[in-house]
Amino acid sequence: MATGQTDPQRRERILAAALDLIADDGVAGVSHRKIATRAEVPLGSMTYHFSGIDELLREAFTGFARHIEDVFALHLSRADTVEQAREAVTDLIHTLSEGPRRDLVLAQELYTLAARHPEYRELTQEWMRRSRHLLEQHFDPDTARQVDALIEGMTLHRALDGAPHDRELTRLAVARLTAAA
Amino acid sequence: MATGQTDPQRRERILAAALDLIADDGVAGVSHRKIATRAEVPLGSMTYHFSGIDELLREAFTGFARHIEDVFALHLSRADTVEQAREAVTDLIHTLSEGPRRDLVLAQELYTLAARHPEYRELTQEWMRRSRHLLEQHFDPDTARQVDALIEGMTLHRALDGAPHDRELTRLAVARLTAAA
Repeated sequence: MATGQTDPQRRERILAAALDLIADDGVAGVSHRKIATRAEVPLGSMTYHFSGIDELLREAFTGFARHIEDVFALHLSRADTVEQAREAVTDLIHTLSEGPRRDLVLAQELYTLAARHPEYRELTQEWMRRSRHLLEQHFDPDTARQVDALIEGMTLHRALDGAPHDRELTRLAVARLTAAA
Repeated sequence: MATGQTDPQRRERILAAALDLIADDGVAGVSHRKIATRAEVPLGSMTYHFSGIDELLREAFTGFARHIEDVFALHLSRADTVEQAREAVTDLIHTLSEGPRRDLVLAQELYTLAARHPEYRELTQEWMRRSRHLLEQHFDPDTARQVDALIEGMTLHRALDGAPHDRELTRLAVARLTAAA
């Protein structure tokens, strides 16, 4: 039988299964047993890879935050001029707010954990820090912070809205915040 | 023994107890029994007031959204000039992001429900519609939508940040978005 050592993808499978379960049933619904079943790994292998459910959840959400950071980086690194950076931010808001419902649910689950527990707040703070750093390639630090907040709010509002606002409105908001750049 | 009919505050007590429980343990942790215990009402009275847990939760979150709307209205209705409205928006962001942790947790719990279930999306859409309506007392509809997204994002980021940004930065962002007003 394969052990953890000989199956390097097992750890990744466990983390992906944890996020799938959280997206479906919420953080409160997860357990070692359910994750092992979903990941199709022996229950005993869970303790080989993770010291406990807290470590597993923190690592799963760290991976999720990295995935969203990659979407940020993909959009922002393509821009050379400020005008392109504005368009990249607009793209980013529309990509994230029209993206998979799973990502929206996971982001909200993570924020809910962060609102309750300082150890998850560290994780979201690190995530915000890196997002701002990516924006600072194009905008001064104060503007980057304002644009990051706009991305957060517009993404959530568009994702939950029955009639989400159009691209022109997003573009105008980004232009207004970054006019001094 | 008092019945539901003779205790008009019982219904309110049940709703407040439900929100307290959700703030402590999350939506997944609530049950008729736990809410009845927390509200100090007989378990049997729950079905007199609410057809089921879904109706109870929707009504509890509707009450929570109204409470945040009241904070919006309190700040925005005092403003007469555009300059005062900008200052009111700045106040609002700092009041909400420095407010009770309970409100932050409940807002995130509600957004998580809305991300998963269309019936809660209706509730958050109605909430966003009313917030924008309050902002439209001072700003054109497109600007109101942009400012509402900024309030959402900045409130969340400041609430979760270990070193939240200062008032001057908020004021600048609001001024930039509303410069055309």
